[in-house]
Amino acid sequence: MPLPGELDGLSKRVSNWGRWGDDDELGCGNLLTAASARRGAESVTSGRRVSLAVDLRNKGGIQVGQPPRRINPFITPTSLNERDEAAPGIWEGTDEIVTMSTCAGTHIDALAHVSYDGLLYNGFPTSTTTASGGATKLGAEKLPKIVTRGVLLDVTRVKGVAGLDEIEQGYAITGADLDEAAESAKVTVEPGDVVLVRTGEMRHYRNRQRGRYAMGVDALMPGLSVHSVEWMHRHDVAGAFADCYAYEVFPPSLPDWSDCLAVHLLHVRDMGLIQGQNWDLEDLSVECADAGQWTFLLAAVPEPLVGAASTPVAPVAVL
Amino acid sequence: MPLPGELDGLSKRVSNWGRWGDDDELGCGNLLTAASARRGAESVTSGRRVSLAVDLRNKGGIQVGQPPRRINPFITPTSLNERDEAAPGIWEGTDEIVTMSTCAGTHIDALAHVSYDGLLYNGFPTSTTTASGGATKLGAEKLPKIVTRGVLLDVTRVKGVAGLDEIEQGYAITGADLDEAAESAKVTVEPGDVVLVRTGEMRHYRNRQRGRYAMGVDALMPGLSVHSVEWMHRHDVAGAFADCYAYEVFPPSLPDWSDCLAVHLLHVRDMGLIQGQNWDLEDLSVECADAGQWTFLLAAVPEPLVGAASTPVAPVAVL
Amino acid sequence: MPLPGELDGLSKRVSNWGRWGDDDELGCGNLLTAASARRGAESVTSGRRVSLAVDLRNKGGIQVGQPPRRINPFITPTSLNERDEAAPGIWEGTDEIVTMSTCAGTHIDALAHVSYDGLLYNGFPTSTTTASGGATKLGAEKLPKIVTRGVLLDVTRVKGVAGLDEIEQGYAITGADLDEAAESAKVTVEPGDVVLVRTGEMRHYRNRQRGRYAMGVDALMPGLSVHSVEWMHRHDVAGAFADCYAYEVFPPSLPDWSDCLAVHLLHVRDMGLIQGQNWDLEDLSVECADAGQWTFLLAAVPEPLVGAASTPVAPVAVL
Amino acid sequence: MPLPGELDGLSKRVSNWGRWGDDDELGCGNLLTAASARRGAESVTSGRRVSLAVDLRNKGGIQVGQPPRRINPFITPTSLNERDEAAPGIWEGTDEIVTMSTCAGTHIDALAHVSYDGLLYNGFPTSTTTASGGATKLGAEKLPKIVTRGVLLDVTRVKGVAGLDEIEQGYAITGADLDEAAESAKVTVEPGDVVLVRTGEMRHYRNRQRGRYAMGVDALMPGLSVHSVEWMHRHDVAGAFADCYAYEVFPPSLPDWSDCLAVHLLHVRDMGLIQGQNWDLEDLSVECADAGQWTFLLAAVPEPLVGAASTPVAPVAVL
Repeated sequence: MPLPGELDGLSKRVSNWGRWGDDDELGCGNLLTAASARRGAESVTSGRRVSLAVDLRNKGGIQVGQPPRRINPFITPTSLNERDEAAPGIWEGTDEIVTMSTCAGTHIDALAHVSYDGLLYNGFPTSTTTASGGATKLGAEKLPKIVTRGVLLDVTRVKGVAGLDEIEQGYAITGADLDEAAESAKVTVEPGDVVLVRTGEMRHYRNRQRGRYAMGVDALMPGLSVHSVEWMHRHDVAGAFADCYAYEVFPPSLPDWSDCLAVHLLHVRDMGLIQGQNWDLEDLSVECADAGQWTFLLAAVPEPLVGAASTPVAPVAVL
Repeated sequence: MPLPGELDGLSKRVSNWGRWGDDDELGCGNLLTAASARRGAESVTSGRRVSLAVDLRNKGGIQVGQPPRRINPFITPTSLNERDEAAPGIWEGTDEIVTMSTCAGTHIDALAHVSYDGLLYNGFPTSTTTASGGATKLGAEKLPKIVTRGVLLDVTRVKGVAGLDEIEQGYAITGADLDEAAESAKVTVEPGDVVLVRTGEMRHYRNRQRGRYAMGVDALMPGLSVHSVEWMHRHDVAGAFADCYAYEVFPPSLPDWSDCLAVHLLHVRDMGLIQGQNWDLEDLSVECADAGQWTFLLAAVPEPLVGAASTPVAPVAVL
Repeated sequence: MPLPGELDGLSKRVSNWGRWGDDDELGCGNLLTAASARRGAESVTSGRRVSLAVDLRNKGGIQVGQPPRRINPFITPTSLNERDEAAPGIWEGTDEIVTMSTCAGTHIDALAHVSYDGLLYNGFPTSTTTASGGATKLGAEKLPKIVTRGVLLDVTRVKGVAGLDEIEQGYAITGADLDEAAESAKVTVEPGDVVLVRTGEMRHYRNRQRGRYAMGVDALMPGLSVHSVEWMHRHDVAGAFADCYAYEVFPPSLPDWSDCLAVHLLHVRDMGLIQGQNWDLEDLSVECADAGQWTFLLAAVPEPLVGAASTPVAPVAVL
Repeated sequence: MPLPGELDGLSKRVSNWGRWGDDDELGCGNLLTAASARRGAESVTSGRRVSLAVDLRNKGGIQVGQPPRRINPFITPTSLNERDEAAPGIWEGTDEIVTMSTCAGTHIDALAHVSYDGLLYNGFPTSTTTASGGATKLGAEKLPKIVTRGVLLDVTRVKGVAGLDEIEQGYAITGADLDEAAESAKVTVEPGDVVLVRTGEMRHYRNRQRGRYAMGVDALMPGLSVHSVEWMHRHDVAGAFADCYAYEVFPPSLPDWSDCLAVHLLHVRDMGLIQGQNWDLEDLSVECADAGQWTFLLAAVPEPLVGAASTPVAPVAVL
């Protein structure tokens, strides 16, 4: 089933299918070039590193059971200050196994993550993903190694609030909002940049309001919207990441919710845009404002989990 | 039990206990500064990105059963091109759980990883790590966010071989070898740099000789040795990573193997050096030689798995 | 540290250490004999089978997070209506992996489960259990294959209530209570019998009051007590199972809770009694009352998980 | 796609679809009655218990990697001789999580396990099984609680060999073979009985020849065949279990292997027969021969894993 009427047109306008060849699995990762990496390195001024990852923890982790079966990490030892019979001596070591949802914390969506109409990005059929083989196309190991110029679009700070939910619980970020933030920062977003869009939602998680963070107020949550998709396409950003749980605004734009998760579908499936959520932009917001600098080197290299539909990442900005 | 006699003296000479305070859990990560991050950014010339991570895969992954219970990732779906009842519309998505050893592939050791004499780095007792709580001290979430200047010490290429095992199966890398590589590269290693030491072992894994890679020939394998430890300490590097399975040479230096894993013990437990293995330096070796440049921006941010003794990392070098 | 004063005497009176040899790992499982199995078979009258297991389910399962990291089963597919390349033809199959706490649902405690003073049943040191090797002594694979005569001690029905918590939230079952139930049933409990003690707590879980079931009201919950331990010893029962979450009463008998989990310690560590909880005795209670028969064939064969401290069981009674 | 020609006729002859109603999910489990349970109990003579389960172990377990991703149990502690903060006192306990394939060892197939033509037993579509929900029809929790009369059909002992592979590597068991074993045992198989068919293959696993057990010699393995299916149907057995890895003979009966796993398909999908494999019948074979008794009480209650396609079982025979 195609997207509802008006969105179908949007889908066609932003589509990148075939742009980088019929076999392309890299999507907007193709926009990451040696030039964008150099631009990132040249953005470093003080050398200050700011982590954008939330700790991966079992107790108090981000996942609270929606959707069901998304789980925080369990770390269980297979060796606990013990030796291995095969290696004598005085040493003792600890080894362990981790079991977690690939999107448990700060993560990047593989392009195999979402679909509609039976097709993934670039027209690969959804049947290319199976339980036994995982995503044989567009899996997490195909994601780009992101080292580029990052741009913080601090929509929230620009509007003088701690979070967009202070303006409206289900605040839908538009292209105009993104322009406003870029202009305030005096930044011209360039092809191959990665934009970080701050909603302020992460403050709830940091305040230990886990349910509020993951499910909003009556399931209303601010985020990117169908009104920001063309902006992403127009600026040819390689990726766009957000500091909230669902990435995109709830409720969707159509009254019947028939466009639920439309931003995911347009970004990932139609554009091949690299996206992800649960990025912690709170410290970065302060650092950028203090430095008066909203561009930086962004290193965000996804774990190359073969066949996975999402994967953990520990991004860092260097100002 | 302390280290055997001669190593005990070495241990005392390289110890960093107390150097950054009695509560320090960051170890040589303290050597990573704004200046070293700037130095890394300034090392970028072409902007070429080189991945240093091996794919995390179940079939054909690095783990082959030694030590027992170290496992390659299992990625199992919790949703396979399906919708969530709570979200209507046309979208379909794939979610999954991964189960893996934290040191299954390219990884960084947390400082809680190894010990002797009942003590971890900086004197924390091993009892601070439990099955239920994991490493409450020195866990993976305490590891530094590595963005600094990286230096490839291509010991192997300098000697004109494809792998050090061509010279001797259990080739023990010495400080002199590291000096030779640095001099050949015309690099002065500085405090806060991270050195990548290439043994060439990774070519066996890339050639699908998994057993050879993980267990060598009759358990003989080249690697760092007790004769390179003081070099690390003298140069105050923040970290040292290698492209082999055990990190350090086998056999150990003493005939009775009583110093088994001594490099781990001296690096991790005594120095607080950040280390890890299964880093793929094959492409980097070629790129550096082609560019005539052995320094680069190194981004290697460990997954912040709370309480873990090791953690995956997807490092990237930008030349 | 030994048990508090008065319990220390009890411990000595009920101890079975050495009774079946210094190497014994079977505990009261030794009381299960060919004769007790025959007695079980001879108890069958109608042939009606009654399941005593709760379904092992992720959503709505028994575990609610206390103690932390006890988890309900996750069942994740490794093949979903798919074929294996190695096997052609028209078939399709589904395979999966389960991840769960061994005590997630209806289970039996291995004798390695609990200890005090550094010693497990029969004096094995707790160091015989390690992270890498599991329980090398007294693990779940050493548990007896239970097929014997079962006796329902329906303490709850005898007292005319739906649950002992109707009498008192933290109702402590005594030997006198057990005698009352046996007498009401006109049953003489014999060596090698297994007794099932009904508190009625399971009705809360069946009513979907999961928190109430697992944590009671203000952590008060009925169960077996230090006042029933000698009864178990005197009757030489092979095992005793209950239909509640903690098995034993909360609060403990001493004001400072220094005897917390004393029933576990006395049963498992001192007596080697086979015990377990989350057994669903609601249907059985009705069937026994309807049939006027409180003895039956009990088959409860634990999964032989090598080295585990608890293990799932799916018990069934045949009246 | 339907079964190949001649098997299609067999499929129709043995089908039980609709026999117990259009909604039936119990299949031949319906044949288990109070009468068959009584018959089982009445088979007990000496009271001797014989376990038919193999230990569930990581090292040396049955799974050797075919099919890929079937794994032996990993048992990892979440508490290792530790206390829970919420419970003071002197006790220490061990808790753990197990991760394993549901068919890792001795198991029963749920009726959702295999299909062809898009349909499961009784016509339920395969789409009733999803990654997120598991088997919503015919899952393991719907399997019958097996307590009935068991009959050992010791095809192997009757022929005077240690294993059928001594006669022919890919020995295909026929109805005539089963008749021969029953006649030798002087047993008349009755509706609701469960038959245990011994190939002798388990001796390879007991001899630590794991590869030989799991993959035979050049993938040739004895087992049940399309020539034994009508026998099962004619005798209306509730279940049939075997002591081999694949349950059925390899190679299949047709030269092009288009009937691969045909016995699974006919038993599970067409008949709704309860089946499973890796049952250890070696001890039972000796005990039955010694006692001159090939019928017994069989208790084999599957773990009620909601939505699973297979499930562990720890069966026991009581002679």
